[in-house]
Amino acid sequence: MRYIESANNPQVKRWKKLLTKKERDKTGLFIVEGFHLVEEALNAGRVEEIIILENVDLPHGLDYGATPITAVPIDIIKLISETDTPQGIFAICHQEQPTITYGNSFLLIDAVQDPGNLGTMIRTADAAGIDAVIVGHGSVDMYNAKVLRSAQGSHFHLPVIKGDISEWISELHKRQIPVYGTSLENGEAFHNIQPTDSYALIVGNEGNGVSKDLLSQTTANLYIPIYGKSESLNVAVATGILLYYLRA
Amino acid sequence: MRYIESANNPQVKRWKKLLTKKERDKTGLFIVEGFHLVEEALNAGRVEEIIILENVDLPHGLDYGATPITAVPIDIIKLISETDTPQGIFAICHQEQPTITYGNSFLLIDAVQDPGNLGTMIRTADAAGIDAVIVGHGSVDMYNAKVLRSAQGSHFHLPVIKGDISEWISELHKRQIPVYGTSLENGEAFHNIQPTDSYALIVGNEGNGVSKDLLSQTTANLYIPIYGKSESLNVAVATGILLYYLRA
Repeated sequence: MRYIESANNPQVKRWKKLLTKKERDKTGLFIVEGFHLVEEALNAGRVEEIIILENVDLPHGLDYGATPITAVPIDIIKLISETDTPQGIFAICHQEQPTITYGNSFLLIDAVQDPGNLGTMIRTADAAGIDAVIVGHGSVDMYNAKVLRSAQGSHFHLPVIKGDISEWISELHKRQIPVYGTSLENGEAFHNIQPTDSYALIVGNEGNGVSKDLLSQTTANLYIPIYGKSESLNVAVATGILLYYLRA
Repeated sequence: MRYIESANNPQVKRWKKLLTKKERDKTGLFIVEGFHLVEEALNAGRVEEIIILENVDLPHGLDYGATPITAVPIDIIKLISETDTPQGIFAICHQEQPTITYGNSFLLIDAVQDPGNLGTMIRTADAAGIDAVIVGHGSVDMYNAKVLRSAQGSHFHLPVIKGDISEWISELHKRQIPVYGTSLENGEAFHNIQPTDSYALIVGNEGNGVSKDLLSQTTANLYIPIYGKSESLNVAVATGILLYYLRA
């Protein structure tokens, strides 16, 4: 184990930069924080480097292989932490953007802005047994710390990739997988659709929903009836209702 | 319209105190922020007083009746705002705790801690046409600003009351309404339950779920199958899946 003491160490500056999307995009790396996420990242073989608070024990029973491990004092932990009460462990991970040539069920995410929503949607897709999540270009960065925290490790459980939703719709049509948009207007009530083995669901921006252009390319557009007086559902809740209905 | 200029005005101190649960409990009041929530509160007849930033126009087309309205400078707005970019309008509202003697569908919330989750659950119950939400004693305060924001006005659409979940279960049994707990273990898969006109659903704490004591008092306990590798679903997402399934 290596020890870095100074916050001016170039290594520390490199870690700190990973808190920005720009640097994550440039390097193809991202940083996860906390025991649970570090364990998930290790199990997925995605860890390049571990950073740990001095005097904190590395979790037992994990396969660290030849992963470089660096101990640091609390002031460096605070520099790279995005939580109020850091657990004192981080992993630098590499992004993956596999080519998805298989799979029957997909979640396509169009311009979701709230990191908590995006993370919760990735976690929900994982729970629902979806084969891959495609995050469209207008969405919040999926390697944002809050997204990673809300997803609770699901980034490491199924392919979560960046993609052009419109190109994906064409591709799914070619594979004869029905693509369902979601819309508050001019759609079909979701429970009129017969669940099938293969399907793709598109969910959209918190305020504007799925873009009209995308809705015009789908097999059908679904809505969730509102029986009370609220104007809409939270997008992550709507995603859960639809993913569980469509696969049931 | 009255004008208050000084942050030392006792009225301003009274408003500011409403940011604490203690004061809300003591006075039976709470504060909502932003045009949308103020409008919902006015429509529901729950507003005692409106506070508005000087030079901001009161929204047109609303029935203000004899509601006192006070204009204040930006530094007072900042004192009572809990958002980064205040819209400059607030309403002081009164809490309501009606006796619920009617209704077929209930959501019972046991010790949910995250304000965003609680608010989203109230919003989801509203959308699903639930007749009343009972917030158990161990939960975050339902008049917390983040809860109100996430619920997007649903506090004003259906009865959302504080209550003892165990007493409610007894009461619902007397009314012959089936009460479903939620549990990761020892339950029935939710889609084995036949949807019915009347039902009550209990959802629980983010880490520990519904308390064992409550689970022992239910008609049945349900779980949502996890088809992937995530450990669980977000509690608000789970609430949406179950409320929409049970009423479908």
